[in-house]
Order: sequence, then structure tokens, then C-alpha cells
Amino acid sequence: MSAWVLPDQFADVLPSEARHIEDLRRALLDTARTHGYELVIPPLVEHLDSLLTGTGEALDLQTFKLVDQLSGRSLGLRADTTPQVARIDAHLLNRAGVTRLCYCGPVARTRIDRPHGTREPLQLGAELYGHAGREADLEIIELAIASLRAAGIGRLVLDLGDVRIVDAVLGGHALEPARVSRIHAALAAKDVATLQAESHGLPSGVRQALLGLTRLYGDEAVLDEALRVLPASDALHRALADLRWLAGHVEGAEVSFDLADLRGYAYYTGMRFSLFGAGDASQTPTELVRGGRYDEVGAVFGRRRPAAGFSLDLKELVAALPRPALQKAIRAPWGSAPALRAAIAALRAQGQTVVCVLPGHEHEVDEFECDRALVERDGQWVLQPLAA
Amino acid sequence: MSAWVLPDQFADVLPSEARHIEDLRRALLDTARTHGYELVIPPLVEHLDSLLTGTGEALDLQTFKLVDQLSGRSLGLRADTTPQVARIDAHLLNRAGVTRLCYCGPVARTRIDRPHGTREPLQLGAELYGHAGREADLEIIELAIASLRAAGIGRLVLDLGDVRIVDAVLGGHALEPARVSRIHAALAAKDVATLQAESHGLPSGVRQALLGLTRLYGDEAVLDEALRVLPASDALHRALADLRWLAGHVEGAEVSFDLADLRGYAYYTGMRFSLFGAGDASQTPTELVRGGRYDEVGAVFGRRRPAAGFSLDLKELVAALPRPALQKAIRAPWGSAPALRAAIAALRAQGQTVVCVLPGHEHEVDEFECDRALVERDGQWVLQPLAA
Repeated sequence: MSAWVLPDQFADVLPSEARHIEDLRRALLDTARTHGYELVIPPLVEHLDSLLTGTGEALDLQTFKLVDQLSGRSLGLRADTTPQVARIDAHLLNRAGVTRLCYCGPVARTRIDRPHGTREPLQLGAELYGHAGREADLEIIELAIASLRAAGIGRLVLDLGDVRIVDAVLGGHALEPARVSRIHAALAAKDVATLQAESHGLPSGVRQALLGLTRLYGDEAVLDEALRVLPASDALHRALADLRWLAGHVEGAEVSFDLADLRGYAYYTGMRFSLFGAGDASQTPTELVRGGRYDEVGAVFGRRRPAAGFSLDLKELVAALPRPALQKAIRAPWGSAPALRAAIAALRAQGQTVVCVLPGHEHEVDEFECDRALVERDGQWVLQPLAA
Repeated sequence: MSAWVLPDQFADVLPSEARHIEDLRRALLDTARTHGYELVIPPLVEHLDSLLTGTGEALDLQTFKLVDQLSGRSLGLRADTTPQVARIDAHLLNRAGVTRLCYCGPVARTRIDRPHGTREPLQLGAELYGHAGREADLEIIELAIASLRAAGIGRLVLDLGDVRIVDAVLGGHALEPARVSRIHAALAAKDVATLQAESHGLPSGVRQALLGLTRLYGDEAVLDEALRVLPASDALHRALADLRWLAGHVEGAEVSFDLADLRGYAYYTGMRFSLFGAGDASQTPTELVRGGRYDEVGAVFGRRRPAAGFSLDLKELVAALPRPALQKAIRAPWGSAPALRAAIAALRAQGQTVVCVLPGHEHEVDEFECDRALVERDGQWVLQPLAA
């Protein structure tokens, strides 16, 4: 095979897209900073047991394994940054109060569930630790919305749910974890046949409630319907009240609900949300952000702290947006004359891109789109427009 | 072992340092952009043969290996970005003219040669393809100097050498590669005893020249001395003339020479340089940038293009600089009143960090240094200074 062939679903990001990703990265990290979120950079590689403890089988299968030659221990290449940031909060910072952290970096996955995705997302996210109340859920949702707005996403749909609702329906019935996973998957897919098969043997009230859940998606009327068709419990009422409160407070996005969808939320313990967005109103919104509450993630590191957060893939986000026009550049001749060098340095200090044409390359096609040239006129270096 | 223990020489980067690294990343990528260098993002993981072909044994030993479950093939976690960028130039862009590329991302290494270094440098670099002349060498050195200036490095020393000089001395004597490596190491360390042992059997003129090389470091007088003590050849004269030309054209750094030092330049074929810098004049400069000419790196990808470039580790750079003062933040109460929310949004849009105090956390110590508070006065939300 040729040396330049990359593994499936790994790819180089070429200049125009890379520039856009860099701009988005800055806009989103700045948004997080203005909301009081501090940047951390966890390592690419950790001991496998700290990467995976408490996060479920799905992440284990997605994690590339390698060996540390120094210690002989198994390492993992991170497939998700959230457990790493929980470790930083729990152990390294070890603060008593509310802690807000954000991060941006590549993760790698052995396999992905979508045919056209990447195995190397550029994950950006934010986490809020130390507050158990729904105000933290709201702040995280609002930060996610502000992030997509800063990226230039025009149309936003917020999809809300809560892991506690399905838990309340299944509550008190000890089921093996694999069966619970299959029930979750069937609920998310609204797959009634599988749901009936998997719920075999459960009390008829629970089975009815599970089937009822598959119809509980749509606008806020879903919350009233849930109160009618699901078995009453304190946990159910709390979850529904929290969702209603969140929907009433969120600004800047259409709100919808899907009470059955728990896909991809292995370590979530409460509210969960997705943000769907499109670059302009004519496009179909795609899922760009996932987040929610996960109070248990830090437990394995010795500190069970309330936690809420979100993450997104900058490569997915950039694909949903129109490519911005590239900044035009200035063409300058190569030379060591002090006046020329000073003129080039001054333009660069203003943020202008100045491309020096190296000797012998005067007739090559510019790779940058140059709309001006630096030329000498009456002993002065001045800018002259170039014909398009 | 505890779940929070990281592998040796891997570490989390905590907020104040992470913020500084992010600021440096932006300053350096912006510097590269104003010089006409386009950003690319190669993947973390590639087929082992494309990562390693043509780059030498040292990189092989430093590269973490893993298996692609999809194909069964061996993959490598990149230990160096330069060969990846050469692949992009040679194969993916495949341009005829001069191409300027830059990159920034983590690399991982199985082991490092220094006791206090990191196995996960955050590598940032720039490469210039398609121009064989020394003007490209000069441009790369000047971009490296401009990058360190943009980072705030006050004192800079440029150390110059050229691989062709040692090659010219050894020229025509077929030596096994391992022995050449040992001779290079002994030259770099000025280890005369090893050099005498390893050069055993070579003509006495070559042995004298090798020993002479160990003394050829210092200021520009070294170039004249080299003409006197090294056997004359066209390659030697060209290399020395190029170094003299570069030293005469470089601005913004003290220039020194070390004609024997080839450490860490496995794939270099011509001029090589290091930049030593310190945050202020009182500190001892440390080596922060390495670069040079490497015309052969793209050959394995089917295109032998002239190439020059440099790279640095942002984690090393940040350690050489004083930590900048953190931006002060604004403390705001939590609330859903439209006037409060509008006041907070307006401050954030100006780039201010506004930390909302969640209900029940009013008496916690601020993690951000807040020097102002948003308070309501006569129905208006206004900023009020906080006592330090």
C-alpha cells in the first residue's frame, strides 16, 4: 500500500478548513472564558484503568490500547476528555467550591458508529462541578447555545430529556446491565417490537410505561402527557419539573423533548440535552452538541461531585457551516533592503499576510489569494491593487 | 495504584499555564499566518510505515505502536509532525510552486532523553517547500525568531551549523550508519576519546579533521578557521559560504556557530539551527527551537522537494517565560431577570469574564480573581470595584 494512504476515517485537515477550525476554536474558547471557564489540557495518553473506570463498556471498546515501555503498564489513547477533566477536578484541583473547566483537543476512537464520521474528533467541551441544582444545567445549556451562536450557527433546536425518567420507570426492577442497554437502545430508536421482547417478564404497568415512552417526544405537551401515562413517583415528578423549568428559562433555541432518548449518554445521571444546528435556516439541523448531568464520573477518583457539561466535535461543527472568505494577502518581492524589510514588518504587525516571492519563483501561481502587491515607487514601498 | 496517577512524564496542564499556552499558540500561529504560512492538521495516528519511512531509527524507537482493529495493520501515534507535513505537501497538495505550511498539535513519545522533559510535547512548527536556495533557510530562521519575539522571549542566540560540513569531511568513506551515528554523537559532545576510537582506520587527514571539528564552535572566526583546518572541497566551501551569508542577513539574534553539532537532526541535509532564548536578559538561554534544511523527507511520498523548517514545544516555551498576570474577572449574582442577563451578556460581548455565583455558593472563595462585582443600584446593573 502507498505510504501516503491514511487509515480509514483518519484524515488530514487542509488549509482552508484548518483555518476555519482554528477560528472556531478561538471563538468557542473565548466564549467559555467570558463565562468563567478555565482551560485545562489533559494528556493524550493515560493508564487504561484511570481512563476507563466508571465510564462503561462502550468507551472501553472505542479506546486504542498501547503499552508503556517505561512501566510495562497498559495505556489508553483518550477517546473522551470528560473523565479526564473529572479526574482533574476531583484530584488535582480539589477545590471546595464551584469549579468551571473547559478543554479543546483531539481524541481518537478505534471505531465509530456512523459511516462518514471521523475516528479523530477535535473535542471541545466545558464542565461545571460542585452545584447539584438545575441552575448549573441551565448555565451549561446556555454556554453551549452561546458557543454555537459564536460559531455562526443560525438556527438552533434544543432537545431535552432526563435519564431519571427511564430510571424511574424501570426503578426497583433489578435487570442485568446488558438488558438495560438494549432497552435504552430500543427506546431511543422507538423500536416497539424489541422493547416488547426485552421487557418480557416485567410487570404490565412497567411494560405499558416503556411503550408509552416511545411516544413522548415533541413540544412541551409531552411533559403533561408523561404525567398521565407514566407511573407516578417522586423521581419522575422532579425530573419533569426540572425539564419544564429549564424549557422556561432557556433563550435562543427552539425547545423540544425526547424522554426516551438516552443514546450516547453512558455516564449521565440526570438531565441530558442535544443541540441541533444548521449554518442557515434552509438547512436541516444536525446534532452538534451533547451534554447533561453526570454526577458520578468523579467518584472513581475519590470525590463524588455534582457535574454538568457538554462537548462537541469542531470537525463536525465546521462541516455544518459555510466556509468563510479567506483573508486576502499581499505579495512582496524578496530582498534585504532595510526599507523593504521595514515595510513588510509593519504590514505584518498590522495583521496583514505578506507573502515574499522567493528569487526564481516570480511566475508561479500564488497559493494565497493576493489582492495587493508591495511595490517601490519614488523610493517608497507602497501597496498597489492587483487585478483579480 | 491510584486511578489518578499519570504515566511518568505525562502531565495535566492546569489553568494558569494552559491559558498562557493558548495565548502563545495564538500569537505564534498568527505570526506564521502573517508570513504566508497556511495551517494544516495532520492526524494523530497513521500507518506505521508512512510515519517512519525515511526518518531513521531514533523516531521508530520513540513512536508508540497500536493496532487498527478495522484493518489489522500497525499504526503509530505520531512522535514528530514534520514527516506528516512533508506527506501533505508531496501528495495531498501536490503544488508546483513554493508552499508554506504550519501546524500545532500534541505528539507523544515512548521515551525522552532528558530527565525533566515531557513525553507529550505540544509541537508547533513551520515548513517551506519548493525553494532550494538559502533565501528559504533565511526565511525560516527569521520566522522562528519572529515567533519567539511574539512569545515575549527577550534574549535570543542563534546557533548555526551545516550537516554538509561533517558529510564533506567523511565524504567518500563508506561507513556503516551506526558508526556514523556514533561519530555524530561524539562530535556533538566534543568527546575526543570516542571520536579517536570511532575514526580508527580512517585516513589520518580525516581523523585530524574530525578532531578539528570539535573545536569549531564560537563566533564567525570559526568559519575562517574551518577553511584552514578542514580538507578543502566544493561542498565545504558552499556550506561555509551559506553560513556566512545567513549570519550576515539574520537580524534580531546574536549568532554563534557549532560546526560539529548534529544532534537530533536525523533527516537534515543542509543548514541546521537552534534558537536559544530566555524570558529576560538575566536568565541563561535554553534551546527552544530546532530547525534546518531537509530536502529528502518528501522523497518516500514520491516527491523529492527542497524543504526547510523548524519546530518547537509550546510546553518548553511556556516554561522559559514568566507567567503573565491573569485577566481579572467580574462577579455577578445568579438570576433570570432580563436586565441582569442583558448586563452580563453585554460585558461578555466586550470580552470580560463574568462569573455567575450560583445559588447557595455566595460565600465560597472565587477561583477567578474578581476585582469587580455587578450590583443593582437604583434599578440599574452597574460595576462596583471589589476590595483586593
